[in-house]
Amino acid sequence: MIKNILVLMANGTEEIEAVVIIDLLRRAGANVAVVGANDIINCSRDLRILPDLPIHKLNETKLYDLVYLPGGAKGVQNLIDIPKVYDVLINHINQKRFIAAICAAPLILSTLNLIKPTQKLTSHPSVKDDLSNFNYIDENIVDDNHIITSRGAGTSFEMAFYLINLLFGAEELRKVQQSIAWNS
Amino acid sequence: MIKNILVLMANGTEEIEAVVIIDLLRRAGANVAVVGANDIINCSRDLRILPDLPIHKLNETKLYDLVYLPGGAKGVQNLIDIPKVYDVLINHINQKRFIAAICAAPLILSTLNLIKPTQKLTSHPSVKDDLSNFNYIDENIVDDNHIITSRGAGTSFEMAFYLINLLFGAEELRKVQQSIAWNS
Repeated sequence: MIKNILVLMANGTEEIEAVVIIDLLRRAGANVAVVGANDIINCSRDLRILPDLPIHKLNETKLYDLVYLPGGAKGVQNLIDIPKVYDVLINHINQKRFIAAICAAPLILSTLNLIKPTQKLTSHPSVKDDLSNFNYIDENIVDDNHIITSRGAGTSFEMAFYLINLLFGAEELRKVQQSIAWNS
Repeated sequence: MIKNILVLMANGTEEIEAVVIIDLLRRAGANVAVVGANDIINCSRDLRILPDLPIHKLNETKLYDLVYLPGGAKGVQNLIDIPKVYDVLINHINQKRFIAAICAAPLILSTLNLIKPTQKLTSHPSVKDDLSNFNYIDENIVDDNHIITSRGAGTSFEMAFYLINLLFGAEELRKVQQSIAWNS
């Protein structure tokens, strides 16, 4: 069955954290929609990416199997400021769909009051103090209550592999890893 | 001293292999010029990237400290077919500047007769047979005669780290690794 994934981007999004997940999940067979706050996304290290769809055209009632939130401090703040981002996330949380957030992106979930104090999570070390009200765990990947969090660009492959295994299983993950010459 | 890096892209370029090097080298302080065969680059997994400069505006006599060639089978073929790519590469080889090529991109160097049979190199395993006339080495990174080669998207971080260490040294590499939460 086709898996539909929504990746949200804004000016300041960390480009590795977006592109590694988009590319590797598409290799696994996912239908990945790259939705941007702007027609052109100016990423954190000045790479310019064209999203598939601007967010004002996104149907916020559509349910995806996974919503992925890349980091980058300014990108995270820009996503927090978009009302439709809240609408999409609360809808997916209520329906127990997966949400994944890397680097500073767990701040989107905390700032918008989408997670409880018992939520286990991790993040980029630089925003750990901002998440001290939650059950913070110092690991590369934390999966709790349908919310998967990770540390940063340096753990983006580990995050992608975790999500591929979750959605498609170990055999598909092995194929993707072989295709990119991982550990070969 | 500022290090100038040229990244060449074309339709079909593998997006992880391009973006990981662009992002991490910029984090290290490099001045990275992303030059594209088209105004919009349609990458191998359908991500669309806007280059900083179209290749017809590139001054082919300018020397960079490093020219980086990402893979992606169709992107590599498209780069081979652009006469200016040959001009840029022969100029840098003659001046003993660094060239780095990942995945299928070593085929650019072999097809354009830019390397000798004694050249040590590696590549994506899928094009190993096409490089049997050279001194093929089954390692993630091979550095020989100012030409650095690597296997694929799965070794793109290792490639970026190798290039940062080469151009900026171990201390700058450590800072970049810390900034992306590598192994933290």
